[in-house]
Amino acid sequence: MAKVLTPRSENYSQWYNDLVVKADLAENSAVRGCMVIKPYGYAIWERMQAVLDKMFKDTGHQNAYFPLFIPKSFFSKEASHIEGFAKECAVVTHYRLKNAPDGSGVIVDPDAKLEEELIVRPTSETIIWHTYKGWIQSYRDLPILVNQWANVVRWEMRTRLFLRTTEFLWQEGHTAHATAAEAIEETNKMLGVYAEFAENFLALPVIKGAKTANERFAGAEETLCIEAMMQDGKALQAGTSHFLGQNFAKAFDVKFTNKEGKLDLVWATSWGVSTRLMGALVMAHSDDDGLVLPPKLAPIQVVIVPIYKNDEQLNAISEVANRIMADLKQKNISVKYDSRDTHKPGWKFAEYELKGVPVRISIGPRDLENQSVEVARRDTKEKSVIQLTDLSLKIEHLLDHIQANIYEKALNFRESKTVNADTMEDMLRILDTDGGFVRAHWDGTSETEQKIKEETKATIRCIPLNNKPEAGKCIYSGKPSKERVLFARAY
Amino acid sequence: MAKVLTPRSENYSQWYNDLVVKADLAENSAVRGCMVIKPYGYAIWERMQAVLDKMFKDTGHQNAYFPLFIPKSFFSKEASHIEGFAKECAVVTHYRLKNAPDGSGVIVDPDAKLEEELIVRPTSETIIWHTYKGWIQSYRDLPILVNQWANVVRWEMRTRLFLRTTEFLWQEGHTAHATAAEAIEETNKMLGVYAEFAENFLALPVIKGAKTANERFAGAEETLCIEAMMQDGKALQAGTSHFLGQNFAKAFDVKFTNKEGKLDLVWATSWGVSTRLMGALVMAHSDDDGLVLPPKLAPIQVVIVPIYKNDEQLNAISEVANRIMADLKQKNISVKYDSRDTHKPGWKFAEYELKGVPVRISIGPRDLENQSVEVARRDTKEKSVIQLTDLSLKIEHLLDHIQANIYEKALNFRESKTVNADTMEDMLRILDTDGGFVRAHWDGTSETEQKIKEETKATIRCIPLNNKPEAGKCIYSGKPSKERVLFARAY
Repeated sequence: MAKVLTPRSENYSQWYNDLVVKADLAENSAVRGCMVIKPYGYAIWERMQAVLDKMFKDTGHQNAYFPLFIPKSFFSKEASHIEGFAKECAVVTHYRLKNAPDGSGVIVDPDAKLEEELIVRPTSETIIWHTYKGWIQSYRDLPILVNQWANVVRWEMRTRLFLRTTEFLWQEGHTAHATAAEAIEETNKMLGVYAEFAENFLALPVIKGAKTANERFAGAEETLCIEAMMQDGKALQAGTSHFLGQNFAKAFDVKFTNKEGKLDLVWATSWGVSTRLMGALVMAHSDDDGLVLPPKLAPIQVVIVPIYKNDEQLNAISEVANRIMADLKQKNISVKYDSRDTHKPGWKFAEYELKGVPVRISIGPRDLENQSVEVARRDTKEKSVIQLTDLSLKIEHLLDHIQANIYEKALNFRESKTVNADTMEDMLRILDTDGGFVRAHWDGTSETEQKIKEETKATIRCIPLNNKPEAGKCIYSGKPSKERVLFARAY
Repeated sequence: MAKVLTPRSENYSQWYNDLVVKADLAENSAVRGCMVIKPYGYAIWERMQAVLDKMFKDTGHQNAYFPLFIPKSFFSKEASHIEGFAKECAVVTHYRLKNAPDGSGVIVDPDAKLEEELIVRPTSETIIWHTYKGWIQSYRDLPILVNQWANVVRWEMRTRLFLRTTEFLWQEGHTAHATAAEAIEETNKMLGVYAEFAENFLALPVIKGAKTANERFAGAEETLCIEAMMQDGKALQAGTSHFLGQNFAKAFDVKFTNKEGKLDLVWATSWGVSTRLMGALVMAHSDDDGLVLPPKLAPIQVVIVPIYKNDEQLNAISEVANRIMADLKQKNISVKYDSRDTHKPGWKFAEYELKGVPVRISIGPRDLENQSVEVARRDTKEKSVIQLTDLSLKIEHLLDHIQANIYEKALNFRESKTVNADTMEDMLRILDTDGGFVRAHWDGTSETEQKIKEETKATIRCIPLNNKPEAGKCIYSGKPSKERVLFARAY
């Protein structure tokens, strides 16, 4: 069977684009930079949402919903925030269409111009902190622990499905606290939630770290992040958690009476992950035959394919398949039985490999005789014959093994591609050959960071939170440094 | 304790606005006509979503996501569709802000004008049918059964929280079929799903019917609806399901090869319910003391309030409360124990009545002695003393009774306010005094419908699906009529 995907070795970027489209995850729409998330892709996103939503609620958060539109003047209230987002805002200026007087079609009605333009939210700090002003008077009203699932729009010039789209789906947590310490604790806690989600569900090992001043969220005092490595050695930022200090409280005049009866500005955090995680999932684990999905997020965990020559055989196989399905469903394992007669088994095998279904069970007449089935795992492509007795228990364990194996593989890959560099030449050579994460000393200045970026196209992904102190000299300036930071080229 | 709500008898409309805000469901935002859905309100909406989503999936539908923006030209492709929505479209014309040259702030960058304006979706038929063109070649690609959870924008001039807002949240199903019969079956099926949801979960009796041509969705061949009655006797349309014929397939040139190998246009349906249901829920059941929530949608089903004078008493009560909570949680009953010492029991009682918590349990020292608790139901305000033995089972049954009782009450109310009228004078008198649904003969013409609307402010809510044939004369024109239709003033 002809390969449907460009091999990774030939063109990694094309492989990714092919895979997202061919596996029915998403496609480009008629609107520049906006994607259509297809049912199979959306089913994976729904699983991510369900897990994250539960983690948010288990840590005391509630969902709410704030307006899609933000008055233009709100944006100007926090100086660095507007600086960060002004260049990529979709702007609503009118609220009505009308028929063109010359009958040529429909035009924007010039009489329906808004007094103040509305920005389609690129993120919601401003409208939310305007709202919080009405919710907060006293320390008794704090903390506010709110999350929102929403669509946002950032007018990106170069877009790629899931990784960078004009409209994307995300969640944004926005919390308000009485003290800096409490807000910082929240910032750390939610980074921990993201890391746990990435490692246990996406099977994606991540480095927790702090962004440099250059790379911080517009309006944040500190941005924490989780950074993951893709199979081409490039980094992908998979989630961020911001300590916003009192910046937004200042901008929107949100004060509270503290326990001592004094007025004080409120402390803030915000944190988010987006449909970008879909891109990370694809890029981290999949291969030249298609998706490799971690079982915990796979919409279909097990597929059963019958192999038969006549109706009699199919009926006998279906009877066994139905029993297996019932057993698996009892264990909350999602299973599909594909008995379509419009496609051959080989076509189905390829199709479910492309779709990343973790386990495939095939059943033929000889299997029936032997009271066994053939089980193939998607991650390693290994096949084995398993007796029907205890099959569902074995499948359950196999799914756990696959989840763990995908994570281990990604972790080993990352470890093998994380190296130290002590000279600019070394760093550039590593980035140009193997790629990956380069641990190097840095003098802590934005100027040096910028110079290194210009020379290598690599950025500081983060200053790892668990960093060990190590005296050294900046790879660029030679000035003293106390720790290595993580450089990489990135998505 | 002073009443926090305007009584319904005094000003029904003000009562509604008071209640939505005071019960922390939603509030107006800084953006004209857009609301903030607060955590408590959103928690109810999440419960609605979860139930509906399961019902959609159980009937074979999958979720997907389509762009927020629609190119202006797409709207013009279906003539009646653009006619219906052109007057209420938010239009994106620019994609960038910049600093004003005079330093006065931020302005829309005139150099960043879009070649073609983008409409913020008021509904997604056009962008979805443009997409379906790429998905459908043969009858094997059909049916497509897709639903989308999304925000939409319709520039309403007069807005009210939940009932009519510029931005609202909804789901929109969009299905594609090989035959008209199959599409019509889908249209009916989804109306059935909505009716079941309204009656079994919202506890809201509804009339299933067809809209007249005047009231049809812009672009539909037939619009089916469910109509509910509010406590002021006005009607509220709670959901619609449209048979779109081949109109959108024609507009977007979506053809398929049928089983006979011939090219044919695809048949379509669309169907939706929105956060408007939150308004229906409030208006149908609540009273002058606050919300009355059907237990199946209440975020908190049971609240436990301790009544104590000292820590010793509180500790003893808490021990019992914890046991009750564990028992209730085992039965999947959501329960909150409010042992805050910052508020008195009376304040808490009023608060949970305002929030519509279906069952309140209070426990005092004497209850401990008697091994009993006091149980108050929100719907009837009845109180009873119940022994701790089997308490959780009794609460479980009580929640079922409350759910059924709320429905019965609304049904009886509707039945008592549904009457026949045979003259215009009768109809007007009924509408001006009792309000409610008026069953009357109509000659089937749009002209007559329009005249009646002008004279009475009532519209034909629907032609009920289960209507019995009855020969009569049109209440307005005197022309012959075969059945009575349902008139009402409406939200």
